[in-house]
Order: sequence, then C-alpha cells, then structure tokens
Amino acid sequence: MIQARVTGKVWSTRRVTSLPRGALLEVETDSGSKLIAFDPLGCDTGETVLVTQGSVAAGYFQGETVPVDALIIGSIDDKK
Amino acid sequence: MIQARVTGKVWSTRRVTSLPRGALLEVETDSGSKLIAFDPLGCDTGETVLVTQGSVAAGYFQGETVPVDALIIGSIDDKK
Amino acid sequence: MIQARVTGKVWSTRRVTSLPRGALLEVETDSGSKLIAFDPLGCDTGETVLVTQGSVAAGYFQGETVPVDALIIGSIDDKK
Amino acid sequence: MIQARVTGKVWSTRRVTSLPRGALLEVETDSGSKLIAFDPLGCDTGETVLVTQGSVAAGYFQGETVPVDALIIGSIDDKK
Amino acid sequence: MIQARVTGKVWSTRRVTSLPRGALLEVETDSGSKLIAFDPLGCDTGETVLVTQGSVAAGYFQGETVPVDALIIGSIDDKK
Repeated sequence: MIQARVTGKVWSTRRVTSLPRGALLEVETDSGSKLIAFDPLGCDTGETVLVTQGSVAAGYFQGETVPVDALIIGSIDDKK
Repeated sequence: MIQARVTGKVWSTRRVTSLPRGALLEVETDSGSKLIAFDPLGCDTGETVLVTQGSVAAGYFQGETVPVDALIIGSIDDKK
Repeated sequence: MIQARVTGKVWSTRRVTSLPRGALLEVETDSGSKLIAFDPLGCDTGETVLVTQGSVAAGYFQGETVPVDALIIGSIDDKK
Repeated sequence: MIQARVTGKVWSTRRVTSLPRGALLEVETDSGSKLIAFDPLGCDTGETVLVTQGSVAAGYFQGETVPVDALIIGSIDDKK
Repeated sequence: MIQARVTGKVWSTRRVTSLPRGALLEVETDSGSKLIAFDPLGCDTGETVLVTQGSVAAGYFQGETVPVDALIIGSIDDKK
C-alpha cells in the first residue's frame, strides 16, 4: 500500500456505468505522485490515508466487476 | 486511477484479433507520462479523463478476454 | 519481490472492515521508495525484509478477499 | 497500453518450459524505458507497436498458463 | 518482461511457509532498478536473464498459491 495525503476531489458525470457512485479523491504521496482513489470512508482534504492499488482494489466490491484500481482502505492515525 | 489529458489518437490495422474495435487514445499525465488507453466514451483531444489500469481495465469487457490494460472510465468535470 | 528496510509502523483505526488486523509496516528500498506492507512475521524497525506486491500479496490470505497489495514474506538473513 | 519502438530481439535457449515459442522483442518507449515483449505479429526492428502488460498479456494465451507479462498487440499505423 | 543481470543471492530463513524453497536472486536492470526474483533455472551471478513480474510469476507454480511476484523465466543467449 502507499501512504498519501488527500489533496482534492474529482467529479465525473460522463462515466462508464460500472464505475460505482462514491467519492473519487485526489491523493498525493510524499514523493509527489498523484492518484485518484475511490473513497468508501468519507475522508477529508488534508487527511493522511492508506491506498491499495491494482486488482485487489476492485476486489473490495465483492460480487461486482468494477473498474477501480485504487482504493482508500484506511485513515492513518499516527506514525511511529 | 490516474488523471490525464487526451493528446491524440492511434490507429492499428495490424493487430491481434482479440483487441476490441474502438478508439485508442493517447493520454498524458501532469508529470508527463504517456499511455494509450481504450476509450468507450468518445472523448476528445484536450479532454481531462480518468484512466484505470491493469487487469481491472480488461474486466470492463465482461465475458470476453481482451488484452486491454488501460481504459478511460470517465471524463472529469471539474476539480475542487 | 523487492528488498527493503523497515522504517516504522502505521496505525489505522478508521479502516475498511476487510483489512485484516495485523501490523502495517513502513518499508523503504535502497532507492528511497516507500511502501506500507502487511507484516505476518513480526519484523522490527531496521530489519531488512522481502516484500511481494500486487494480487499475489492478497493471495496469501487464502479464502478471504483482502485489500492488501504489499506483504512481507521474509526477513533477509544475509546477502552474498 | 504503451507505445514503443522495436529495438531488437532476444533469444533464450535455457528457459522455463511454459514460456511459449515465439519472438521476444526488445522495445523502448519515448522516455527510454526498455521491455522485452512477446510478439505474435511478426514485427520488425524500427516498427512502432502497442504493448500491453501484466496479467492481461498472459490472458492472450487462452487455455494455457504462460509466464508472459508483456505482449505486442498491434503495430501502430499513424498518429494524429 | 525485463532483461536484467544477476548480481547476487539472498537467503531468508524466517519466512512465510507458502514461499517455495528455491533460489532468490538479486537482479539489476540496465537502468539500475533492483529486484529479487525466484530462480527455477539455476542461474549464476553475472548471467543476463529474462524476468516476468506480477501475478503471472505466481502462475508458474501451478496448483499452489505462492507469494512470488518476480520469476526468472529464461537465460538470455545473445542479443541482436
């Protein structure tokens, strides 16, 4: 997984129908890489999150075949 | 997913038969990475799009086994 | 796989329920890339570990569908 | 997918038996990344091709489990 | 696939039980990226090899679910 910070939100009205409704957040890693991740947790801008990528992100939507390759799976509390 | 801008289109006449007919768009990220993505939405050059990658892109073509590893899944409206 | 050094630990209280309980370690490669990997072995900070990525990391959790895309699969003894 | 130019060919006599017989071409992207891709189309050095990567490349070999993670799926005609 | 040179070997005594017994080689690409790959072919340091990555690497171990995401699938003879 990667640790990233939520930097914004994107909207897409014209989209494939298999993309689930829900928040699409822009996240950025410490090294400056940017991704758009599906957010099932209701995270806010500025929050530090854990993002999983690839087919395991889509596996979260059990029973559906969704084209999601990046998913926020946790909000990071603290780091030691 | 990644956010990218459509910068062009490619054609491939000599191709494997399992590659579906449809537009193959060249897209570029803010950091300058280029990809060729399958476009089921009819996007135009200059449009900002959401691209999914890997096996979940191929999963969009349900019931078929297609060699597509990058798919445009939405046109991005706006960003806040 | 990649070889990396354990540099810390992260906690995530607010998380998706399918993320298994267990240690989430921050690891860093020689080239400076950072990842968060699930650790089933109880590794310590400073330890050099072997990390597998992608869907094979999730495959470790047989019978469950977990959103884990990075897994520590060994502690590296020595290198020749 | 990525667009790349064929820059050479590699031969491997000592190989795992599940690697199919066929051409293994070296390809290079505009940014200088190099890959070795399986070529079912008979492409020539200098040709610009479309390359798919990951498990969808292996999916091309239906009914067989092959260790191929990069496949040439088309020769690019032209670009606009 | 990527072409890489074998630069060393790693040992891991403390490991997950699903990691198969066999050589784990350190390989390096021309651009300096390093990976640890499982080697079923008995390659030597200095040898140039072909490495496949991701879930297709694990697919080599048919009937088993192994956490291997990089596999040496051939020794490269020569390059033209």
